[in-house]
Amino acid sequence: MPLRERQLIERVRRMAAAAKSIGRHSGMVRGMGDDCAVLRLPAGYDSLVTTDFTIEGVHFRREWQSAESVGHRSLARGLSDIAAMGGEPVAAFLSLGVSARVDQKWVDGFVRGFLRLARAHATQLAGGDVASSPDVVVADVMVLGKVRRGRAILRSGARPGDKLYVTGKLGAAGALLERLHRGARVPPDHRSLLPKPRIAVGRALVGLASACIDLSDGLSTDLMHICAESGVGAVVDADRIPRAEGATLEHALHGGDDYELLFSARERIPARIAGVPLRHIGDIVKGSAVHISHGDEVEVLEPRGWEHFAKG
Amino acid sequence: MPLRERQLIERVRRMAAAAKSIGRHSGMVRGMGDDCAVLRLPAGYDSLVTTDFTIEGVHFRREWQSAESVGHRSLARGLSDIAAMGGEPVAAFLSLGVSARVDQKWVDGFVRGFLRLARAHATQLAGGDVASSPDVVVADVMVLGKVRRGRAILRSGARPGDKLYVTGKLGAAGALLERLHRGARVPPDHRSLLPKPRIAVGRALVGLASACIDLSDGLSTDLMHICAESGVGAVVDADRIPRAEGATLEHALHGGDDYELLFSARERIPARIAGVPLRHIGDIVKGSAVHISHGDEVEVLEPRGWEHFAKG
Repeated sequence: MPLRERQLIERVRRMAAAAKSIGRHSGMVRGMGDDCAVLRLPAGYDSLVTTDFTIEGVHFRREWQSAESVGHRSLARGLSDIAAMGGEPVAAFLSLGVSARVDQKWVDGFVRGFLRLARAHATQLAGGDVASSPDVVVADVMVLGKVRRGRAILRSGARPGDKLYVTGKLGAAGALLERLHRGARVPPDHRSLLPKPRIAVGRALVGLASACIDLSDGLSTDLMHICAESGVGAVVDADRIPRAEGATLEHALHGGDDYELLFSARERIPARIAGVPLRHIGDIVKGSAVHISHGDEVEVLEPRGWEHFAKG
Repeated sequence: MPLRERQLIERVRRMAAAAKSIGRHSGMVRGMGDDCAVLRLPAGYDSLVTTDFTIEGVHFRREWQSAESVGHRSLARGLSDIAAMGGEPVAAFLSLGVSARVDQKWVDGFVRGFLRLARAHATQLAGGDVASSPDVVVADVMVLGKVRRGRAILRSGARPGDKLYVTGKLGAAGALLERLHRGARVPPDHRSLLPKPRIAVGRALVGLASACIDLSDGLSTDLMHICAESGVGAVVDADRIPRAEGATLEHALHGGDDYELLFSARERIPARIAGVPLRHIGDIVKGSAVHISHGDEVEVLEPRGWEHFAKG
C-alpha cells in the first residue's frame, strides 16, 4: 500500500478512535482492524443498508463549501435514507478516494464533519477504505441501520385516499445552488450545506406512514418514485407546499438535496413530530398520474428533480 | 439525475433482475427500488461488512484487462474478506462512478463479470449507486455476509505454538503484474485476473483456525497484520511457501492480490479443504518479530506488500 494511503488510513482511524464514545449501544462486535466489521443486531430487527456516492464536481465543489460540510453531507445522505425507512442508524462505512490536489487539512476537515454528524446520531464509523484517486475526491458512504422486523416503511405502501405530507420547508438547497451558480458568495458552512437527517421523525412514522421517501432528488421526482412503486397517482396543492426563505416554487418542487421526508398516511398526523413541522400538501389518488393544483387550475407535475439543476 | 446516470442505473437494475435467481436463500426482504435494502438474517448470526475501492489507474488498467475481469475482481476482493472471517456472503452493493471515456459495452462487461461471480456465490446484488465520474472509473463494493454468532475468525486470535498455513499457491498475481509492467501481452481474462474467493475453505476453518486474513496486500504485510493484532511473532520457512508457476519468492512474499487465505491453527489441519490444498509454512512464536528462514539462515521479513509493486 502506498505510503500516503497508509498514513491517511491511520489518521482516519485515529480520528475515529478519538470519537469512540459514539455508538456504544450499536451492537458493534469488532470494527476497524479486521477483514470485516462484525455487527450484532438485537433479535427481532431487520437490517437496512444504503450507499451513496459523493463525487467532486458532481455532488460538490471545493470552492463552494467547506470540507466539513462535504463530510457532513456525504453521511447525511445515507442517514436520510435510513430515516425514510423508519430506521435507526447503527454504523457507517467510509470509502474515501483522495485526490493529490487536496491536502491533509482538507481530509481532516472532511472526516471531522463526517464524525460530528455520526456522533449526533450515535452512529459508529466501523470501517471503509482509503485510496488515492487520480483526479477528484470520491467518497462512498454506506450506512447500516436497523428497524423492527417487518416494520420498515417502504415506498410501495401508498393507497388512494391517503394524505401526502412533508417535513420542514423545501427549496433551500435549490435556491442556494442557484445563487452559487450565479457566482454569489455564500458562507462555506451555510445551513443548507449541512442538512439534518430526519431520523427521529422517521422512527415516529413507523406504523403511521403508509409510504415514505427522502427528498434527495426533488419533490417532483421523489413523489413519482412513491407513485410508481405504489401503483397510485397523486395531486399536490402548490399553495400548501412549505417553502424555505428565498425559495421559489420551482426550487421547492424540483430543487432536491433538501433531505426532508415525503410520506403518505391514512391516519391523522400530528402538526409536529420531534419539533419538526409536518404539512399536508396533497393526496394520493387512483391511477398513475401526478398533478399539481394552483387554485382551480390543475396540471401535470413533470419529474424535474436533480437533472434540472445539474444542467443549470 | 442526469440522463446518462438514470439510463445506467436502469441498465444495471435490469441486468441484476435478469440474474434474480441468485441469493434467494439470502434473507433479502427488499432490494433495489427503495431508500434502503432491507435484509433479515436468521437468528443466531452476526453480520459481516466489508468495503473495497477499485479505482482505474490504481487497482486496474483498462488496457491490461477485460471489463469482465475488473467487475469480477471488484467483487472478489469483498468476498475474500468475508472468506477470511469464516463467513458466508449474503448481498453485495455496487457503487459505480462511470467515466465519460468508457462506453456502454465496457459497463455491461463490468456488470456481467460482477454478476457472474455473485451468482457463483449465491450473493444478491441488492443495491448501490451509479454516478458520472469526471475522470476515471471508480467502483466501491460493499459485501454483507453472515457468520454464526461469535464465531467469526478474527486476526487477533493467533497464539505462540500455533502453526501457520496458506491455501493454494502464491505469487501468480505479482508475477503477472511484473510482466504487464514490462510490456508483455497477457490475455485480458488471464486466470490471475479472476481470483477465486476461498469462501468454502473459510467456512470450514470456523472452529479450526485461531486467526485468519486474506492475502490481498501480500504475505509479508498480511502476516504482519495477524502478528500485530494477535500480539505475537512468526517464523516462515521460505522453502515451504507454495509458489505459482513463474512466481519468484519475492512475488510470493510481497506480491499481493492472490486472495488466498493465511491462517493460524492449534489443531491438526487436513491437507485439503473443498479441493484446495493447504500448506504449513511456518509457526507463530512469542514476541512481535516476523522472521523468514532459508535453510539455516534466519532474517527479518519486512512487510513489503502492495507498496512494493505500486512503485514498480
